[in-house]
Amino acid sequence: MRKVRGLAYSVAMTTSTPTACVLIIGDEILSGRTQDVNLKFLAERLGQLGIPLREARVVPDVEAKIVEAVNYARREYTYVFTTGGIGPTHDDITTPCVAKAFGRKVIRHPDVEKKLRDYFGERTNDARLRMSEVPDGEGVSLIENLISVAPGYRIENVFVLAGVPAVARAMFEAVAHTLKGGPPVYSQSVDSHVREGDIAARLSEIQDEHPNVSIGSYPFMRLDKLGTSIVARSTDKAAIATAIEKVAAAMRKLGGEPVFGPAP
Amino acid sequence: MRKVRGLAYSVAMTTSTPTACVLIIGDEILSGRTQDVNLKFLAERLGQLGIPLREARVVPDVEAKIVEAVNYARREYTYVFTTGGIGPTHDDITTPCVAKAFGRKVIRHPDVEKKLRDYFGERTNDARLRMSEVPDGEGVSLIENLISVAPGYRIENVFVLAGVPAVARAMFEAVAHTLKGGPPVYSQSVDSHVREGDIAARLSEIQDEHPNVSIGSYPFMRLDKLGTSIVARSTDKAAIATAIEKVAAAMRKLGGEPVFGPAP
Repeated sequence: MRKVRGLAYSVAMTTSTPTACVLIIGDEILSGRTQDVNLKFLAERLGQLGIPLREARVVPDVEAKIVEAVNYARREYTYVFTTGGIGPTHDDITTPCVAKAFGRKVIRHPDVEKKLRDYFGERTNDARLRMSEVPDGEGVSLIENLISVAPGYRIENVFVLAGVPAVARAMFEAVAHTLKGGPPVYSQSVDSHVREGDIAARLSEIQDEHPNVSIGSYPFMRLDKLGTSIVARSTDKAAIATAIEKVAAAMRKLGGEPVFGPAP
Repeated sequence: MRKVRGLAYSVAMTTSTPTACVLIIGDEILSGRTQDVNLKFLAERLGQLGIPLREARVVPDVEAKIVEAVNYARREYTYVFTTGGIGPTHDDITTPCVAKAFGRKVIRHPDVEKKLRDYFGERTNDARLRMSEVPDGEGVSLIENLISVAPGYRIENVFVLAGVPAVARAMFEAVAHTLKGGPPVYSQSVDSHVREGDIAARLSEIQDEHPNVSIGSYPFMRLDKLGTSIVARSTDKAAIATAIEKVAAAMRKLGGEPVFGPAP
């Protein structure tokens, strides 16, 4: 049986390295109406912060499914980020579901309620005031929203963010400095017009020689020519450099001209 | 407690309606290197075939996680589609993991092995022949690949597709006619420059009046003006038309000019 190798696995084995899970909440992703872009953003940013994203789930607007996913993720991972479902309409059910997952009631946060009432004036209504709702009790703090008026919030290790990408990003950046990251994960790529199947055996050896580097292989087609992009990821920059140089040497041996991505 | 409503829920309650789950396998999605686009494609096509996509998971290249996700999904849903991890390199571990989930060995499929040997000639090697591997035993059938040489395969209710989008699409289309769909799910949208918070209360009433329609509300900003896109989804075209007309009327009452999407 093939060994399971690479960074993802070794990270999971290191209890001191924080991990993250993203829960994308919304029927619009599962119906194909909306192309999710929050996952890629969160994955990149979390990696930079030394908090590898280990799993993501796309969950429908169904209470039991959201509650189950929140309870699974908050127990399994250091940090959980949810996106979507915190607006004013009937299909925005993330907050009551998160509250239920924690066994808590939903309350209107007084500061947010005041802010919404001040902002909307005569256009304040019950739907808009739903955006002031948070789970009751300890360990709940608001997440600033510089784009629109309603904040997100953190409850224990769960960060409840908006689904609109610009707002999700702003909310993430508002809490990024509060996250305790491990050593940052660096990466470098090297591409050339060699075929995956030709370089695969040597690549496997290089992976074995560098157990603290995760080496990924991704085929591409450019100008009608097949090629392979190799990405090395690690917390160890020197190990990345050595592994990438070995890959480049293997590419040259196969007649390929290696093109290096930016050094980490 | 807010009721959980809408199509997703009612579909789950109807045992005769088939359901689907997508497992996106690959560290490159969780590292943020790669923007997944297969989920949106599969979601749209499955919806057209009357097989609502009910859940998706992004799983790292870690054996235990893939095995667990495959076993969960194949028991919970009518159809499971995996994408990624069936190439020739060391990080392509989907097939041994799927085999393990089913308690089976991995074998080289003789027809695929011959095809690969014919295609690659002297460049045939063990790495490339990994692309002929499938789980052993009953209920395994190949999925044609019109784009590149190695096929995908079906094992019972699990369809193992490539990760490269063009190949994933070709493989899906090769099996689409074999899937047993329920009634197709139709949708229509109506947009206007009204704010979600202004239309939310009426929208909730319309949702209650049409329990067999799933009504989603999505804010947007165009030309610096906020607006709302409402999407009605149902197997019942007449119900969609009625619900959308009610939404349009509510938009007009708020001073908005409804812009209708194509009729289903």
